[in-house]
Amino acid sequence: MPNPLVDDRFVDFLLDAVHPLDPILALDAFAEHDRDTCRMYLETSRRFAREVLFDSYHPMDAEQPVFEGGRVRMHPRMEALWPRLLELGVLTAARSPDVGGFALPGMVALASQVYLMAANGSAMGLVGLTTAAAHLIEVFGDETARGLFLDAMYSGRWTGTMALTEPHAGSSLGDLSTTATPRGDGTHAIVGNKIFISGGDHQITENVVHLTLARIAGAPPGTKGISLFAIPARRPVEGGLEDTLEDNDVTVTQMLHKVGWRGLPSLGIAFGERGDCRGWLVGEPGQGLRAMFQMMNEARIGVGAQATATASVAYHEAVAYARERTQGRPPAGRDPGAAQVPIIEHADVRRMLLRQRAIVEGSLALTLFAARCADLARHDAEGRRPTHRALLDVLTPIVKTFPAEYGFESCALALQIHGGYGYTTEYLPEAWLRDQKLNTIHEGTTGIQGLDLLGRKVMQKNGAGLKALFGAIEGTIARAHAAGVPPAWCDAARALDARFGEVTMGLGLRGMKGDVDGMLSHSHHYLTALSIHVIGWQWLAIAAAASGHDAPFHRARMRAAQYWFAVEVPRVGPLLDLCAEAEDSYAGMPPEWF
Amino acid sequence: MPNPLVDDRFVDFLLDAVHPLDPILALDAFAEHDRDTCRMYLETSRRFAREVLFDSYHPMDAEQPVFEGGRVRMHPRMEALWPRLLELGVLTAARSPDVGGFALPGMVALASQVYLMAANGSAMGLVGLTTAAAHLIEVFGDETARGLFLDAMYSGRWTGTMALTEPHAGSSLGDLSTTATPRGDGTHAIVGNKIFISGGDHQITENVVHLTLARIAGAPPGTKGISLFAIPARRPVEGGLEDTLEDNDVTVTQMLHKVGWRGLPSLGIAFGERGDCRGWLVGEPGQGLRAMFQMMNEARIGVGAQATATASVAYHEAVAYARERTQGRPPAGRDPGAAQVPIIEHADVRRMLLRQRAIVEGSLALTLFAARCADLARHDAEGRRPTHRALLDVLTPIVKTFPAEYGFESCALALQIHGGYGYTTEYLPEAWLRDQKLNTIHEGTTGIQGLDLLGRKVMQKNGAGLKALFGAIEGTIARAHAAGVPPAWCDAARALDARFGEVTMGLGLRGMKGDVDGMLSHSHHYLTALSIHVIGWQWLAIAAAASGHDAPFHRARMRAAQYWFAVEVPRVGPLLDLCAEAEDSYAGMPPEWF
Repeated sequence: MPNPLVDDRFVDFLLDAVHPLDPILALDAFAEHDRDTCRMYLETSRRFAREVLFDSYHPMDAEQPVFEGGRVRMHPRMEALWPRLLELGVLTAARSPDVGGFALPGMVALASQVYLMAANGSAMGLVGLTTAAAHLIEVFGDETARGLFLDAMYSGRWTGTMALTEPHAGSSLGDLSTTATPRGDGTHAIVGNKIFISGGDHQITENVVHLTLARIAGAPPGTKGISLFAIPARRPVEGGLEDTLEDNDVTVTQMLHKVGWRGLPSLGIAFGERGDCRGWLVGEPGQGLRAMFQMMNEARIGVGAQATATASVAYHEAVAYARERTQGRPPAGRDPGAAQVPIIEHADVRRMLLRQRAIVEGSLALTLFAARCADLARHDAEGRRPTHRALLDVLTPIVKTFPAEYGFESCALALQIHGGYGYTTEYLPEAWLRDQKLNTIHEGTTGIQGLDLLGRKVMQKNGAGLKALFGAIEGTIARAHAAGVPPAWCDAARALDARFGEVTMGLGLRGMKGDVDGMLSHSHHYLTALSIHVIGWQWLAIAAAASGHDAPFHRARMRAAQYWFAVEVPRVGPLLDLCAEAEDSYAGMPPEWF
Repeated sequence: MPNPLVDDRFVDFLLDAVHPLDPILALDAFAEHDRDTCRMYLETSRRFAREVLFDSYHPMDAEQPVFEGGRVRMHPRMEALWPRLLELGVLTAARSPDVGGFALPGMVALASQVYLMAANGSAMGLVGLTTAAAHLIEVFGDETARGLFLDAMYSGRWTGTMALTEPHAGSSLGDLSTTATPRGDGTHAIVGNKIFISGGDHQITENVVHLTLARIAGAPPGTKGISLFAIPARRPVEGGLEDTLEDNDVTVTQMLHKVGWRGLPSLGIAFGERGDCRGWLVGEPGQGLRAMFQMMNEARIGVGAQATATASVAYHEAVAYARERTQGRPPAGRDPGAAQVPIIEHADVRRMLLRQRAIVEGSLALTLFAARCADLARHDAEGRRPTHRALLDVLTPIVKTFPAEYGFESCALALQIHGGYGYTTEYLPEAWLRDQKLNTIHEGTTGIQGLDLLGRKVMQKNGAGLKALFGAIEGTIARAHAAGVPPAWCDAARALDARFGEVTMGLGLRGMKGDVDGMLSHSHHYLTALSIHVIGWQWLAIAAAASGHDAPFHRARMRAAQYWFAVEVPRVGPLLDLCAEAEDSYAGMPPEWF
């Protein structure tokens, strides 16, 4: 049986019963849609992911793009895939009809994407970058920029990139040094170097548009002086015919050899080596980071979705292997004459599988919840939007991080279940393990997410984010109680809410008293603890919908919820103690002691 | 500054103060040695590891062995390395002078090996396999086998392998089906297929000897029917000149493409495809597994050493990168005009580094302790040996597993600290991360180690293993108290001893009442819990020796001990609760629910 990538019935269960889609479809913004249109898109995506996209994953991983003569060639499979992805409508599924989109609810678009991402993350990378870049121009660009780029990108004739990182600055965007000098004709002359530019060059389309952060001559230092530009690799010829392009002085300087995501090239790019590179300002001068962060927050949900997808496909591979591979006998009956049993009969193999499922399905529930939250933050009644927004803000670093970090452990378990075979490139789990590692790094490392959560998201607006989260958890607890979920899980969730409230308040006070370092020293443990608690909440929501049903489908979810509360949740308390005490083993250790 | 691979001063500190070498040197067996001879060997190994061996790591990882025309060719670098490794004496450092060895204490040999393993695990793989295979023949072989193989192998003219695994049986050795039929001339005709045979063929030496498990015609099923054979790829010509070899019908059927350890080929091997393969029995018929397990227990300590070494070299790479790479500014002073700081200034980077150090140095201390224990179990006064043996037995699954599992997390942190660069093959951490994964699989997976620990090692001989362990921990606590180590750590260790005693007793009773499945269902969590506790004990021993010293070297170790007790040890209690309750989330879940 081929790998299903993602469990259909579980996705349907989420959309029907756990985080229902119906109230979203009832919003005016989605008047054009109903369950049938949503289901049709979802089904088409599922089929395409399974029947077309997955098949190209292994070849694209095995043969990386080629960098030759200054140009990059992606795997030939990608040439055939691109028009079919466009046909599916992935670039604009959740965008407005004004730009050719279906205006699907974000949660439906995301549910569909998870299948495609599970099938082939590298191929979907090119999609995600293009749609995110186009969206920036759509929201922030002026008439000229929109006219030049929007249709070409949303139609997939050109692709897009995010050109943020510079070799010396990395995550510290305020330190970037690419410059932009007004040319007097509305464009800017761009000079600078970027690195890790995914999809920065290829033969799939005739042009690539780099959404690039740069500093306009005379701008202040730090993040305030940063502006956003659209820089095409080839620019329209002035006064030429509409479709005539000329070289825009954008050079590929190197191709990095990535550990995973090997279908998608990651490049060094130089702008203006010959002094002839033009960029189009997107948004106001000095507002580049603001615009980029809007994109980045969406991109972080996207990373969570990709990480979930990668963990999911690896999980399903491991289940299939564990059913099929026979080895050994149960401890209680070691008759050497008896036939060997499928390894899924061994309790420790089921431990590894249930842990994977708890991570994968918990992540999926959370990621869909976040997408739903984004739908509501945009389209719910005006007065309710700030609560949805606050909740989404506080969940974003968790959605970005949990599926990536725990998903890495989950992929390692998938490899482990495959034993010695899993340690060879003849089997796929090792590739997914490599892919997964990127998700803890790009779009803000785990360390940065911890600082973002504790230093910003839970503290801003008088703690509105945590309040919104606790409100949502309380609602779930009430549903769970009513559904007959074991009270111990509800009590555990409620007690943790209280403890998080206390500890966070204490940390806020510590910060206000000037001990910002102490407040933030365990930001990683705070992020881990809140993630485990939030996933516990998701399992409570799933249990509330599954409780009382007798089918193996539902009882299996009750088991996963039991696992989460019994095995993972007990880690939270001790982690919060560290935060509360500002335990100083590493924070207080001078760098020269290492 | 080049990567030091392992911290010299810390190794010296272990040998001088934490697990002192002097009492070992005082044993009769090591009368030929003193601190100087030991130090000389250690220094030579350090220098060779740093100046010669490490340089070949990256090329051997980048270009895997080639399988062509039925023969395997290892990287050309290996051809130059092999004679130099022999010159160093690595094959026989800890062996008796009777076989050309130095008879070094095992703990000194192991301390030296850790450097070599950190420099190039694949190269050391060929060494380890050869010396282990030769040792089996030395201990169990008859005159003929010893005469044929021993000198050739210990001198490095021929290499050795461990040919246990068969495609359909994997870890379940009792199910292997390779057959051996007496030929009447003292040899057996061998027919069968093996897989994952590391170092099974190469151009480095003229012959390879496979220590192979097979079933003599008519032997009982299961593990009792298994015998051990030495099967050379080329055999001495009957009646020919001493050094004339002829083909022994041993065929390489495939080369697996491993994820890591890419310098060392892993092969499928067929014996007797033409009916002309001869094996020499090693030990008594039916005693093959007993012999193999003696080797295996040593090999498991070796895996722990290799895992420690890999985590160590990755840690040192991460420290150097974190000092050198500048990025961002501390949270308390975000002046965008100020210069960027080295990332080691960020608390979360120091968290990742201190966690790595706690894992690496805790593993190193434990592994050396185990090697010391083996020296004592062999050479201490007769009456004391059983206690050393019991302690070594109970520690073996922990030495095998902790450095591998936590070392994998540690290597992932080294990659993470390198950020986007760490995700490229231009930097080394990703290679060590790949290497590390094997250590949770070969020589018994983590799942098997858990069953071995809880189902056998802590239960056998009326719990002699745990008693010996608790005795040793109690001794360390007394030293730590006397040295002024924070009493909270001592109290934590003592309380955990008591709790482990209780829980283990309860599990034993559960097993005796017939609920073997329930007793073993959390064997993984038991292994994890006891590992964290045992590493805490090691940090207590280190702290006892470091306490009261003012040098950064010692204070840094106190910080690492603090980290371990504050951050890692609190996980133990909840894990033991799961064991005690036989919590049934996954154990009670039927396979078909996945």
